[in-house]
Amino acid sequence: MRIELLNVGTELLMGFVVNTHASWLGRRLNGIGATLARQTCVADDAADLRAALSEAMARTDAVITTGGLGPTASDLTRAAIVEALGLETRVDELSLENLHERFRQRGAPVLESVKSQTIVPKTATVFQNAHGTAPGFAIPLNGPCRMILVLPGPPRELRPMFDRQALPLLRKRFADLLPALECRVLRVASLGESRVEEIVRPRLCEVAGLEFGYCARPGEVDLRLVVRAKEAAAARETANRAEALACEALGEAVFGRGDDTLELAVVRLLRERHATLATAESCTGGCLAHRITQVSGSSECFKQGWVTYSNDAKAAQLGVPGHLLVEHGAVSEPVARAMAEGARTRAGTTWALATTGIAGPTGGTPENPAGVVFIALAGPNGTSCARHLFLYERESFKFVATQTALNMLRLEAGKRR
Amino acid sequence: MRIELLNVGTELLMGFVVNTHASWLGRRLNGIGATLARQTCVADDAADLRAALSEAMARTDAVITTGGLGPTASDLTRAAIVEALGLETRVDELSLENLHERFRQRGAPVLESVKSQTIVPKTATVFQNAHGTAPGFAIPLNGPCRMILVLPGPPRELRPMFDRQALPLLRKRFADLLPALECRVLRVASLGESRVEEIVRPRLCEVAGLEFGYCARPGEVDLRLVVRAKEAAAARETANRAEALACEALGEAVFGRGDDTLELAVVRLLRERHATLATAESCTGGCLAHRITQVSGSSECFKQGWVTYSNDAKAAQLGVPGHLLVEHGAVSEPVARAMAEGARTRAGTTWALATTGIAGPTGGTPENPAGVVFIALAGPNGTSCARHLFLYERESFKFVATQTALNMLRLEAGKRR
Repeated sequence: MRIELLNVGTELLMGFVVNTHASWLGRRLNGIGATLARQTCVADDAADLRAALSEAMARTDAVITTGGLGPTASDLTRAAIVEALGLETRVDELSLENLHERFRQRGAPVLESVKSQTIVPKTATVFQNAHGTAPGFAIPLNGPCRMILVLPGPPRELRPMFDRQALPLLRKRFADLLPALECRVLRVASLGESRVEEIVRPRLCEVAGLEFGYCARPGEVDLRLVVRAKEAAAARETANRAEALACEALGEAVFGRGDDTLELAVVRLLRERHATLATAESCTGGCLAHRITQVSGSSECFKQGWVTYSNDAKAAQLGVPGHLLVEHGAVSEPVARAMAEGARTRAGTTWALATTGIAGPTGGTPENPAGVVFIALAGPNGTSCARHLFLYERESFKFVATQTALNMLRLEAGKRR
Repeated sequence: MRIELLNVGTELLMGFVVNTHASWLGRRLNGIGATLARQTCVADDAADLRAALSEAMARTDAVITTGGLGPTASDLTRAAIVEALGLETRVDELSLENLHERFRQRGAPVLESVKSQTIVPKTATVFQNAHGTAPGFAIPLNGPCRMILVLPGPPRELRPMFDRQALPLLRKRFADLLPALECRVLRVASLGESRVEEIVRPRLCEVAGLEFGYCARPGEVDLRLVVRAKEAAAARETANRAEALACEALGEAVFGRGDDTLELAVVRLLRERHATLATAESCTGGCLAHRITQVSGSSECFKQGWVTYSNDAKAAQLGVPGHLLVEHGAVSEPVARAMAEGARTRAGTTWALATTGIAGPTGGTPENPAGVVFIALAGPNGTSCARHLFLYERESFKFVATQTALNMLRLEAGKRR
């Protein structure tokens, strides 16, 4: 089943708001085996909207619109659709009551312009808005395009309305078109996109009925496995087989599934093992501690972090011997090791991670160009250290360096049983 | 001048990646007086892409595509456009050199599939990719649609390529269609959107030919000033006047212009004053140090940071007296003050910022619910401290708390001359 999404809003095209509807609705539609085939954003312009709507209706089984249901002069989705399809309208009494109630709570008078939001097509199924004043609605049609769903723009209004009212209606109306579907995402660290493809492609190509693809971001790759089938059990069985093959091929490079982050995987692992962690950062400047503490519950395993930007701080706070700093420089393997070991001893933790390098764009030398980083991990079996070169701008450099550090810890801590 | 944006990527429609291109490019195009008239996203499907491209070309002066330039089988933008327009191709030698150099630095062999990224149309102007292996390019056309710009999908590759190479080309090619335009953005901290409007609206309404608007995000508000005119000098003069009026009205709440971040403003100020900074973080977990060290050159003023998640770390590393932790608890004004003062003394810096609070969602008490944070600033004239309640999820909480801390430092450090 193919669905198109039509976002209405000049603010989206002027760049004042990031459009998150496509990714959110895309995931929801995947989840029922429907395909978001195309997404279009038009300005608050009735002619543009009517043109885009009729194009979308010609290509798909259903169209979802978002935005343009408010009370201002620039909110014209409702009127444009009603006019384009030649529909009769009515006032939805339940929505009008909701509107009066919301204004009563605020102690504000109800303006006439606001009431226009409760006008809906006579044939529509109305979606009540629990978080705003504009109801959404679904218009049933008899053409190849069998339904138009009209939803409000603010995500906090759209999302609960979609999950509770629109999605059940879609499943019912399109029961004949929706396949059984299984969608799995494997999250991979430490391998590039081409290498992941090289490893999994020969095996996954042999799984009949499987679609697979990749999404690469700095320091991580998603492998996406999708199976559509007539029966749910068959889809699940094929997806299980594909997932097992991919996991076997990729081995420990797979750190999680779905929306898992690497920091979540690390915190989960450390908590399972009752292990603790400290961090000593130079070039990553607190990014490592920041990422770990994004995970709720990280305080159970993360005890302490140092951001030792200066040589003095490395010596005074982590006990890095002065002669190492002089002989090898702050960006060196001996200093990275000493930082990790100093942090582990001082914080009294199972593990300690240290980073020292050159985030750039300035500060590079011939021996250590911008992008160089030494990452050291001190643990119960000693200290390991690796040198990397990450040629990214500053923000991505910090992300990839911390990604590599977290992955080093994940692989090492995962070994101990 | 009307431009359409065509994003290519199944991952965008399946919801694995949020599409930020429309908002980013929309703002950039506004900045030169061009209008992003429509944005369309299609899957990695050659037929869909060709159809959307020819529709967009029929409606606009230029089309920008993003994504699908990578090395895998699902990257088909280059081939689809070349085929749709019947273009001849060549290998771009400079891009091929760049690719070999990147692989050489990584010590990885160059796969044949990767080299395909350097194929471009013969007539194209090539945009070198400073942050990846796939070049972008611009195809000049003779129809009503006069140019197609083909850009890579990853934002960190697209953004510098667009600013440095594509935007100047667009301005040159479409000089006849672009109006004189001045667009200014003032960045405001510590005031809400309604308060900003209340302050500036009466004055800005009196500036003829000025359009102005607001964009609110957690912890900051943008004030946007736009002037379109026939002559560049007239546009600039009106924009200067409006900017001066707004700055006078908002006073020290304005921390920067354009894309300035608050951390950039703080680092700039500290460097000007030859002042130094240390941080002591509990609930913000390294986010403050991370933000400061995002600024290139921050090592000149930022000396050291502590992430003292546990009480032990607060006592051992920052010298917070044990009786304060026992009597007042870790989330209290006396502890915040002691953390800031301990950090300042130990790091020997001009300033030290400290945070202690409850990021949530768990860990709240009736006295200190989730969202509470004490922020202390120690400096040459003593220590100040404020209690705030930020009711956001974890990530935004950390951002707003660090935003408030940075602004406290900016206002205080700005006073000393």
